[in-house]
Amino acid sequence: MRTFIIKSNEGRTKADFSLRDLPGTSGRIDVLCRVLNAAFLLSHGFRKNVRVWLILYGPPNPPKALRFEGPELRVRLNPDERSTAKLIMRALELGEKLREPGKELEVYPGLYVSNRTFEDVLRLTLKNSTLYYLHEAGEPLEDVRFSGNVAFVLGDHRGLGREDEALLDGVAERVSVGRRSYLASHVVACVNIHLDSLGIP
Amino acid sequence: MRTFIIKSNEGRTKADFSLRDLPGTSGRIDVLCRVLNAAFLLSHGFRKNVRVWLILYGPPNPPKALRFEGPELRVRLNPDERSTAKLIMRALELGEKLREPGKELEVYPGLYVSNRTFEDVLRLTLKNSTLYYLHEAGEPLEDVRFSGNVAFVLGDHRGLGREDEALLDGVAERVSVGRRSYLASHVVACVNIHLDSLGIP
Repeated sequence: MRTFIIKSNEGRTKADFSLRDLPGTSGRIDVLCRVLNAAFLLSHGFRKNVRVWLILYGPPNPPKALRFEGPELRVRLNPDERSTAKLIMRALELGEKLREPGKELEVYPGLYVSNRTFEDVLRLTLKNSTLYYLHEAGEPLEDVRFSGNVAFVLGDHRGLGREDEALLDGVAERVSVGRRSYLASHVVACVNIHLDSLGIP
Repeated sequence: MRTFIIKSNEGRTKADFSLRDLPGTSGRIDVLCRVLNAAFLLSHGFRKNVRVWLILYGPPNPPKALRFEGPELRVRLNPDERSTAKLIMRALELGEKLREPGKELEVYPGLYVSNRTFEDVLRLTLKNSTLYYLHEAGEPLEDVRFSGNVAFVLGDHRGLGREDEALLDGVAERVSVGRRSYLASHVVACVNIHLDSLGIP
């Protein structure tokens, strides 16, 4: 199982943005749509062995954690970002009712929403996966020996802050797809293709 | 200079599609928007050393060839596909006036439209670049020795036909990012990141 964890600093936590102008109104939820696309989609296929956490910290009700669980997912993920943004909107609508921090609601089969924090998600993931932090200055992907369940943490277009990095220090090895700063979705696509080449499930 | 050549079998050749439903109305011009994104965009940056040819063979006026010339490009490419689709629409609008096969019109600085065929574009590219055909069964990217100007040919979601492949045989080496069939945009992102790692401009 491959897990991708993306922390979005500005992603709206209420479904009040416009599908017609995602970059301008949603706190860059368009970035997250493209990450989902890169995490799950093959040409004419879907990766069932993938889990994605989107953790939104934008206004007005942070945090909101959306979990896309590949093996259970029954909604169709289409490659266009507009249809993916609609799923995120639906999750945020349902998430408005959430009060308890630990509770998770099922939006559709395989799509869940909760008030979990970035730290909660890291802790949960560490129980059964090896954690990696994708960072330009990390060890080149080709030199890392992956095995078992692997989980990758990424920042959004603004990157992770010092507090986030402090949480990762000691629990996540820094790995890198290259020395330049790439778009999150391109990094996820590359990691997936690299793991395929290694035969990692 | 890196060149990416994408032949789209169904991409509309008239600006009569809807930005609200690109996948359903444009002959999958959304696929091409994501390829442009992967070809040109870095996180907070733009690759100037890239040229992209989109060659559209959908109805009603095929072919239409759009050339995005990185070093000259003055229009802002945004990562959301909707804004990129608007540029393609503008090019197709201007392209309606084209009658002569060899003539190319400037849509914006660095964006051109013509009635060139796939074969025309291959011939033009071969003049100053080494041509590669991205194909699942090709030689793994890591084993190829790239140098100088490199150009990569890709199919869209339907792939290239036998006639297209006949044109490529003998002039383009088949190379591969992996044995599975990946989305065109993910392949382009991977090729770019791989060429970066080799220091190829």
